[in-house]
Amino acid sequence: MHFVMRSDATDRDVGDVVARLEAIGAEPRVSSGRSRVVIGAEVLSPSDLADLAAIEKVVDGPVRLVERQIEDEPTLIRVGSVTIGDGSLTMVAGPCAVESRDQLFASAEAVQAAGAQILRGDAFKPRTSPYSFQGLGEAGLELLAEARETFGMPFVAEVIDPRDVALVAEYADIIRIGSRNMSNFPLLREVGRTRRPVQLKRGFTATVDEWLDAAEYIYAEGNHEVILVERGIRTFENAARNTLDITAVPVVQRRSHLPVFVDPSHAAGKRELVAPLALAAVAAGADGLMIDVHPAPDEALVDGAQALLPEEFADLMHRIRAVAAALAEA
Amino acid sequence: MHFVMRSDATDRDVGDVVARLEAIGAEPRVSSGRSRVVIGAEVLSPSDLADLAAIEKVVDGPVRLVERQIEDEPTLIRVGSVTIGDGSLTMVAGPCAVESRDQLFASAEAVQAAGAQILRGDAFKPRTSPYSFQGLGEAGLELLAEARETFGMPFVAEVIDPRDVALVAEYADIIRIGSRNMSNFPLLREVGRTRRPVQLKRGFTATVDEWLDAAEYIYAEGNHEVILVERGIRTFENAARNTLDITAVPVVQRRSHLPVFVDPSHAAGKRELVAPLALAAVAAGADGLMIDVHPAPDEALVDGAQALLPEEFADLMHRIRAVAAALAEA
Amino acid sequence: MHFVMRSDATDRDVGDVVARLEAIGAEPRVSSGRSRVVIGAEVLSPSDLADLAAIEKVVDGPVRLVERQIEDEPTLIRVGSVTIGDGSLTMVAGPCAVESRDQLFASAEAVQAAGAQILRGDAFKPRTSPYSFQGLGEAGLELLAEARETFGMPFVAEVIDPRDVALVAEYADIIRIGSRNMSNFPLLREVGRTRRPVQLKRGFTATVDEWLDAAEYIYAEGNHEVILVERGIRTFENAARNTLDITAVPVVQRRSHLPVFVDPSHAAGKRELVAPLALAAVAAGADGLMIDVHPAPDEALVDGAQALLPEEFADLMHRIRAVAAALAEA
Amino acid sequence: MHFVMRSDATDRDVGDVVARLEAIGAEPRVSSGRSRVVIGAEVLSPSDLADLAAIEKVVDGPVRLVERQIEDEPTLIRVGSVTIGDGSLTMVAGPCAVESRDQLFASAEAVQAAGAQILRGDAFKPRTSPYSFQGLGEAGLELLAEARETFGMPFVAEVIDPRDVALVAEYADIIRIGSRNMSNFPLLREVGRTRRPVQLKRGFTATVDEWLDAAEYIYAEGNHEVILVERGIRTFENAARNTLDITAVPVVQRRSHLPVFVDPSHAAGKRELVAPLALAAVAAGADGLMIDVHPAPDEALVDGAQALLPEEFADLMHRIRAVAAALAEA
Repeated sequence: MHFVMRSDATDRDVGDVVARLEAIGAEPRVSSGRSRVVIGAEVLSPSDLADLAAIEKVVDGPVRLVERQIEDEPTLIRVGSVTIGDGSLTMVAGPCAVESRDQLFASAEAVQAAGAQILRGDAFKPRTSPYSFQGLGEAGLELLAEARETFGMPFVAEVIDPRDVALVAEYADIIRIGSRNMSNFPLLREVGRTRRPVQLKRGFTATVDEWLDAAEYIYAEGNHEVILVERGIRTFENAARNTLDITAVPVVQRRSHLPVFVDPSHAAGKRELVAPLALAAVAAGADGLMIDVHPAPDEALVDGAQALLPEEFADLMHRIRAVAAALAEA
Repeated sequence: MHFVMRSDATDRDVGDVVARLEAIGAEPRVSSGRSRVVIGAEVLSPSDLADLAAIEKVVDGPVRLVERQIEDEPTLIRVGSVTIGDGSLTMVAGPCAVESRDQLFASAEAVQAAGAQILRGDAFKPRTSPYSFQGLGEAGLELLAEARETFGMPFVAEVIDPRDVALVAEYADIIRIGSRNMSNFPLLREVGRTRRPVQLKRGFTATVDEWLDAAEYIYAEGNHEVILVERGIRTFENAARNTLDITAVPVVQRRSHLPVFVDPSHAAGKRELVAPLALAAVAAGADGLMIDVHPAPDEALVDGAQALLPEEFADLMHRIRAVAAALAEA
Repeated sequence: MHFVMRSDATDRDVGDVVARLEAIGAEPRVSSGRSRVVIGAEVLSPSDLADLAAIEKVVDGPVRLVERQIEDEPTLIRVGSVTIGDGSLTMVAGPCAVESRDQLFASAEAVQAAGAQILRGDAFKPRTSPYSFQGLGEAGLELLAEARETFGMPFVAEVIDPRDVALVAEYADIIRIGSRNMSNFPLLREVGRTRRPVQLKRGFTATVDEWLDAAEYIYAEGNHEVILVERGIRTFENAARNTLDITAVPVVQRRSHLPVFVDPSHAAGKRELVAPLALAAVAAGADGLMIDVHPAPDEALVDGAQALLPEEFADLMHRIRAVAAALAEA
Repeated sequence: MHFVMRSDATDRDVGDVVARLEAIGAEPRVSSGRSRVVIGAEVLSPSDLADLAAIEKVVDGPVRLVERQIEDEPTLIRVGSVTIGDGSLTMVAGPCAVESRDQLFASAEAVQAAGAQILRGDAFKPRTSPYSFQGLGEAGLELLAEARETFGMPFVAEVIDPRDVALVAEYADIIRIGSRNMSNFPLLREVGRTRRPVQLKRGFTATVDEWLDAAEYIYAEGNHEVILVERGIRTFENAARNTLDITAVPVVQRRSHLPVFVDPSHAAGKRELVAPLALAAVAAGADGLMIDVHPAPDEALVDGAQALLPEEFADLMHRIRAVAAALAEA
């Protein structure tokens, strides 16, 4: 059972509800959203609290702060000069993994020139095999910070271990939780305790409900800047690496106030499919895109087959802007 | 083993190859594409035929006439004044099932006014339960023919039984094979023997390879006017009726010369998701869309929850044209 | 809305309900189960019929005659001297497709010697590619009939075209609907009009609910001898041809009174996996098994990789009997 | 590229190969299996090392120590007086989560009486929602240790955070990695550094290949006592919680030398399906089973719907023994 407080409820109002719940033996659990507090408790007769005017409604069943039924206003996230979630399209691009200073800087220069606002590049990679390249670690984060200085672009980087969250949060402008860790609850809690925006990729076998539950883990810890990233799900079809669930974009936008991005690169797994999927995501209304770009994909240590060349990315950006503008005017 | 004939090979050239194959005990199987003949046969030493100059190449393994590796030029299909597959966007719209003259004519008038070129409406419906409405049968086809006269729009209608193919082909401008029948091989062969264009919907659990195999059944019978229709696949995600596999559009366009349509209505199963999926399909490069429109969806006998109201369809058409125009210019 | 008649309701009782429904403008639809009649109709106030004592209950929602909630007694099917569904284990075995007299007779002799009661062997094969072997047709049925005479074993054979149902029913003791045709409703209706037992294989992407709906198509036509056959479903896992859904055995047995068989051969697609899956199916409580056996699998025209050699089948039968006996005594 | 050392290679032999690889600029990576060392390195001309006799073979491509192609002898794991993987059937049972001393002890007493050898009960639970019961933590481990003393049964408990591995390893006889953490690579490495046997549950959307990769993460760290646990995969079928992939048992046993268990309780999610799935797993050749048993399932804080009552478990154990005995003799 959840007691949803009015948006103008004070700390004292919350304290009153908690006290009343404790008095009747319940164990209240307070979760603070951006604009509202929700208090969960097992209570047999919620009508006993009917005199507490600061309670707006009582919901019998699961409630998520990340859903519009609790907080309807879209979540806006500011990163440097970029505002995410305000109806504009945010473009994140760069190499999948940081491999070297040259590779990173060439990528950053290219994606910035083409119009991307945020740089991507990972220093910690979760790899299926223990024998694959696992990332440069802190040295990679240092290169990313240097690229930020040089190009004036904020960057996003993945974290895969709760013990590294503080380190990644110290360097990165946005922390990413990858698909394989979407249900790594200790990691979600840990990033929920930082004050860095978090990109939460959908597990490639997670339902939309489970994705929102994972977002709730971060949000309920007090970190309200969560960006959902659709990146394809696992199906019987193997023509691409994964099946981009484009439907998830409008589904999630109707249910949640959080911004939704699309990563067509990891969904496709093949360079030639990235552009049509990226354009589809823009047309479906995504709040942002994240695209792999590499100056020499054939030499990439991770996922080179899906990375666009700089000139392909520039061409795609041209078409993305055309579609975004057409929809804004239509 | 397949012997791919040169595109200028004559009937006599084909006859020569067949004769030589029969002479060595093989059982040649001749399939005629739009521009080429392919002859299949089990042969131990294909080099024995090396002197036959009309053979362009010998392929050891499966070959499909519907693939670009055999015929690269896009297949153009003319229906009334519409040309499908020439880079323009073809819009098919109307009710899922024909229910009555009023319902059909109201739908037809609305979709034509909004700019659709081809009317949809089914007279035979494959229904999961034997106790559900199964369509009006020939009476439905007569109403569709009357609507064609009245509004000057060609129409597409589904066939589900090989014994009804001649009947449906007599009335309809385009015959449709539905998802549940994608691997109904006797039905595929039967429509392959007509000279009506065929819409072949992807089975909701079919791979792209199986879809192309099904198209080959029709194509190999001599009917080269096949339109592939993506309509969502079955996955673990239940937020929508099916998961629209938007990636299938570029995947199939790269492999096959046949036009590819998208049916966002049956994929979504929910009215509010149809518009974003339709726009995504246009942006991904689909050759056409097929959309359910119903004047009173709440009273529809079949799939009302996914049908757009006439005014919603008109609004969507406006945005579809904007995206299509932007991409054509970009 | 469904009116479930008492099991002792007479034709006259049914006629009375139908008349009353027609009198109030409803369009009643009568379905006769083995022991009960169910009448479907859209009625606003079913209480108007409350005086008709032959109505046992009124169900608001879908009802299937094949479910235990309507008919609880297990369906017993007699084929020659075999009774299917009585708690004993029925063994069906033989080649996937009939290829020649020698191949069929060698298979039949082997599977009979090992203890199988029913022969399998198909004369019509639904093949993914139009260029694959499609079966011997009626000549194959004649060989099967000859094998029945010689070995005294009834046989099951597949039908894939509604126009061939009468032919196959004339020869075969049991007709099979294959996975690809599970939702071929005209075909289901046609076999429902014969009086031959029908094996209904689960579509490899069908839910249990859809499978029961397909069975209802046959059952509602008056053919009550339907055997459900689980043969693996399509999932993301490709280590075997399909993923045998062993859970479907107890799920269906709890919901339906129809017998449930398992086909481990088509699920596995690989010989070495057939025995463990067959034993698992027996332990899970399957009413029967159907297993591919071929005297020379490497030369098989269809699915040779999954066929057991005669001696492998004999060894498996030994273990199957041991497990079945242990469970019967435990 | 992988250099597989002979099984009698000495540390010195390994040192020689490493030195030679370093001398040519490669970065060798040594992984020690139970009986063999494998050295990975990127080398252009492996024939340069052809004079080193301690190298048994060179494999160009991925190699896993957990596969039979490297180590063929089955892995035997001893826990107290139980030997896992020797052809006998190991039974693990108990409550899903430790809730209280009374609940745990009642469960332990019941499962021991029925013949289970190892107790299960979790102190840390990964829960989809942040608002669900998350386990008793260390207090739960203390209760488990007390139950071990009282009943003389070793126990297995889950770990979900790399920071808790040392704690869980201090208490538990076997550590479990749950499905959601199968690809939590930092956690896998951490348990790989302990010397406790590890149960590795298959991710419900992991392929067999990915599952073996996850096992390799543990194994390659030097912990060779890994037990694979199949617990159902996610498919389109929702009749049960997950689809038990019974085929995975023989598939994995043919590829890997590690023992394979089945958890029918988490696969089924429903009490009435547990027994047929458990029996199927025994018949398919599983090395062990893990079953939820709870003295009062309706009051369980976690997964009560799937827990067997003590008397149901005792009855199931009777049938399990009958099937296991029949197969051992057949």
